[in-house]
Amino acid sequence: MDQRRQAAFLILFICLMLDPRFDVGVCQGTPIESIATTFLTNYFNTFDSSRANVGPFYHADAQLTFEGQLFSGPQAIVAKFTSLPFQKIQHSITTMDSQATVDGGITILVVGKIKTDDDPIHGFTQTFHLKQVGDSLLVVNDLFRLILNN
Amino acid sequence: MDQRRQAAFLILFICLMLDPRFDVGVCQGTPIESIATTFLTNYFNTFDSSRANVGPFYHADAQLTFEGQLFSGPQAIVAKFTSLPFQKIQHSITTMDSQATVDGGITILVVGKIKTDDDPIHGFTQTFHLKQVGDSLLVVNDLFRLILNN
Repeated sequence: MDQRRQAAFLILFICLMLDPRFDVGVCQGTPIESIATTFLTNYFNTFDSSRANVGPFYHADAQLTFEGQLFSGPQAIVAKFTSLPFQKIQHSITTMDSQATVDGGITILVVGKIKTDDDPIHGFTQTFHLKQVGDSLLVVNDLFRLILNN
Repeated sequence: MDQRRQAAFLILFICLMLDPRFDVGVCQGTPIESIATTFLTNYFNTFDSSRANVGPFYHADAQLTFEGQLFSGPQAIVAKFTSLPFQKIQHSITTMDSQATVDGGITILVVGKIKTDDDPIHGFTQTFHLKQVGDSLLVVNDLFRLILNN
């Protein structure tokens, strides 16, 4: 609960920094692209420094499809991430596209690269659907694929 | 309006074929993956045979982000597609992941290949957000990126 509150306050803080016209709702008046960029920066920084701490980015009903496997809820999602067999990881974003969704959220499509330990660099693509819940913006859908032999 | 009706009936027909337990709503009881696969097959078949005809797949408020450019509404989206400088196109799907969304829709992440005319084959990634509108399932968000120098 504390972590959820911290995530909510973090989003509010980001909104306030991005747009002085911030009034009610999540980042009302703030360009979608700025919110998406800030979210991705925070998310990947957290993931790359300590992936055990990404839980607060996810909604209680969040789903992750990771290389075709489905995980539901922050606990199962974080358990999957922490089970991955590498020590170090670094995401870099090649392209990022975002749109407002009809339910007041944001959909993001990322194309980027991942470097894990001393492994070769791999391409990846990932879709996030962020939903406004109270004063915070949480991940409800996360779909991830490595781009290998495409 | 006729085309919209045709699209609605097409979706209903697909649902009925997929799941005899179909009762109310769009494909209630049908596995998300089956709906997503059927949608993609129909969408890409239509796109590849005559991209001027994909309009009925899109909601009136649909958005397309194509290589970073935003287009709003079926008319602008179809105009973009038909302006693309190739005669022949063929999509092939490498991976397809789908999830139910909190607003009763479906989010799909596609990784695949595109062959246009005699050009080299290119990778692409695309996210669709489908939303239930009445008895039909329409695209409200479409984000497309070629995978070039990732």
